[in-house]
Amino acid sequence: MGKNIVVGQSGGPTAVINSSVAGVYAQAKKLGIDKVYGMIHGIEGFLDDRICDLDDYLASPEGIEMLKRTPSAFLGSCRFKMPKIEGNEEIYDKIFEVMEKHDIDYLFYCGGNDSMDTVKMLSDYAAAHGKKQRFVGVPKTVDNDLPITDHCPGYGSAAKYIATSLKEVIRDNSSFGVKKPTVCIVEIMGRNAGWLTAAAALAKSGDCEGPDAIYLPERVFDIDKFVNKIEELSKTKSSIVIAVSEGVKISDGRYVCEIGREVAVDAFGHKQMSGTAAKLADIVAERTGLKTRAIEFSTLQRSATHIASLTDINEAFQVGAAAVKAADEGKTAMMITLDRNGDDPYQCGTSAHDIHDIANVERKVPDEWITEDGCGLTDEFEAYARPLIMGELTPLFANGVPVHLVRK
Amino acid sequence: MGKNIVVGQSGGPTAVINSSVAGVYAQAKKLGIDKVYGMIHGIEGFLDDRICDLDDYLASPEGIEMLKRTPSAFLGSCRFKMPKIEGNEEIYDKIFEVMEKHDIDYLFYCGGNDSMDTVKMLSDYAAAHGKKQRFVGVPKTVDNDLPITDHCPGYGSAAKYIATSLKEVIRDNSSFGVKKPTVCIVEIMGRNAGWLTAAAALAKSGDCEGPDAIYLPERVFDIDKFVNKIEELSKTKSSIVIAVSEGVKISDGRYVCEIGREVAVDAFGHKQMSGTAAKLADIVAERTGLKTRAIEFSTLQRSATHIASLTDINEAFQVGAAAVKAADEGKTAMMITLDRNGDDPYQCGTSAHDIHDIANVERKVPDEWITEDGCGLTDEFEAYARPLIMGELTPLFANGVPVHLVRK
Repeated sequence: MGKNIVVGQSGGPTAVINSSVAGVYAQAKKLGIDKVYGMIHGIEGFLDDRICDLDDYLASPEGIEMLKRTPSAFLGSCRFKMPKIEGNEEIYDKIFEVMEKHDIDYLFYCGGNDSMDTVKMLSDYAAAHGKKQRFVGVPKTVDNDLPITDHCPGYGSAAKYIATSLKEVIRDNSSFGVKKPTVCIVEIMGRNAGWLTAAAALAKSGDCEGPDAIYLPERVFDIDKFVNKIEELSKTKSSIVIAVSEGVKISDGRYVCEIGREVAVDAFGHKQMSGTAAKLADIVAERTGLKTRAIEFSTLQRSATHIASLTDINEAFQVGAAAVKAADEGKTAMMITLDRNGDDPYQCGTSAHDIHDIANVERKVPDEWITEDGCGLTDEFEAYARPLIMGELTPLFANGVPVHLVRK
Repeated sequence: MGKNIVVGQSGGPTAVINSSVAGVYAQAKKLGIDKVYGMIHGIEGFLDDRICDLDDYLASPEGIEMLKRTPSAFLGSCRFKMPKIEGNEEIYDKIFEVMEKHDIDYLFYCGGNDSMDTVKMLSDYAAAHGKKQRFVGVPKTVDNDLPITDHCPGYGSAAKYIATSLKEVIRDNSSFGVKKPTVCIVEIMGRNAGWLTAAAALAKSGDCEGPDAIYLPERVFDIDKFVNKIEELSKTKSSIVIAVSEGVKISDGRYVCEIGREVAVDAFGHKQMSGTAAKLADIVAERTGLKTRAIEFSTLQRSATHIASLTDINEAFQVGAAAVKAADEGKTAMMITLDRNGDDPYQCGTSAHDIHDIANVERKVPDEWITEDGCGLTDEFEAYARPLIMGELTPLFANGVPVHLVRK
């Protein structure tokens, strides 16, 4: 009798999370897996037995190509935190019941830190209860903050969107040659880790000087120094563009976007960030009299598949495929990692690593990659990040807009 | 002796304003024009005799192709309002002095309403003072609000960006299948005319239901009705996405973004719009308890050349070329118009029209193209706008980001 598997997507979507599902499907079929199910809205939907058969969408090569070009979570996502096992056995039992009902042997879960915790909890429960099912995590997060893996699928595409859009914003902001410069403050995602904001440095190239300063959440944000820096720049420049993480905090521990207002909190207890650039633009305008503009790159950072990185799409596919291979080789309680073998030329492979070293561990931008003045990135960061944004995958356009694959 | 010409760019940049400069240059060279100068920062820079020789950038076909792929104003833009002639003759004299110094016969100015006023004023001055130079306006505005012309170069690309990005935002917003929907409010440019916001309707296609409601500045904005609409939608939908113009006004005439705060004013007396979506998101969250998110498409709407419309790029080139042809045939005090000959298949030509019918006239979205409930667009709008976003021009990518042409 053939084996069956299920794959789910969890947490914030990325431009390439669907490519991982395509990788899971393609590898499973190559290995003779019978049914490849998709969880509708992650483990939350799976608890209600909501699944689909991916043969319905991916049986043809065109289906796989279209899925690679589809942003956001094709299967639907969720933000469901697995409770601790003791006292919550019924939730775990329910999940194994659904798996057993469909004869599911391997479960794959695409996500970031919180989702890897789900993989860990399910593996731990299986180990403790003599369950034979296998669980492998598929890394996915624009935040790039999973440990052990060199980088996370989803990051390269978000970084490419940020670098490309910032280049365009810098061009736009510099079109006016007025005496007093316009100060444009661009807010970039990343609550605690500054990987995405650091990608602003990739806008710099022969035809673009890049942003004038980059502020990561890894460093305490000093509003006075920030304003002074802009005043200094305004003496010589006709356009000033600053990249700032949504998660920058002042010395008393408050987020900049919390100054003077309350912020909402999500299911994981994470604060909803927003308004950092607007707040800073107001402060700069008030203190310097300069014209300011605030831009938030918003959810487009994680969903702009039309400008996704081909390297990222391919690696997302590879980690999906590697997860199926690992499970089929008997591995469980693992996450697939990307292992870099070289920067130039860039080379990268995959392996599997114990999920217990990964779940709930957050990796930040190394201190030595941040310049001494705290508002720039070193060449080491560039060497690390540039290869991840290389290459493009042309969307299929119809009616003037990119076409996406949709669930029926 | 050969003729010389000068071209300038003015007002807010667009994704294709440079394609018009390329069109001016290419046609001029075809007609045997000697020097094609570019004004550095429009008429403001021209007053200081700041010009460049476009041979330095565009003499090769690659130069022209790169310029077509370069966002924002390659020559630099300005927001300079020509004063009334009486009492300000010295400014006009200065402009003609610079023209005469460089033996410039024709002046071309790419811009929107304010820039066409510059063309009108210079033509009027020339006529009154027996000057032989000719002045032709090249239409350019993402706002699409110039009269007589069927549409304006710059609009199609901004509309394509909006439709594409909104599709991606809708996918992202719908990835979570929670019981209570997230309400995502997307703010789109357009102070008085709703053309850009209307382009949100183009996100709708076989694979996307489009935004749930679209609010144009052509209609008075009723906050209570707006909140009621969202509450109604929230009863059946797991994701709500609303497009709203930055320029919507409530019944007392105030912009929504002015409620509870002061807004800055630019050189033309235009208020700096921003914060409409954030304001509405706050109101909806407070009144309904729903989770909300505000997105501003920001200046990327006008500068995202990486997703420009090929139709728009080509038409921007054509109006530039047509302007040179018109001047060379003896025309002055004109603006080039785009004249549609058919929707399906789409066909469009160019002609020249008296600038006096155009300058300072603002064209809004026709009332009959707005649905009766005031928050949608009719099929007539779709038939009008869809052809303008068709086609793509692949950027040249290097180091993972699109390459732009820069002035030395």
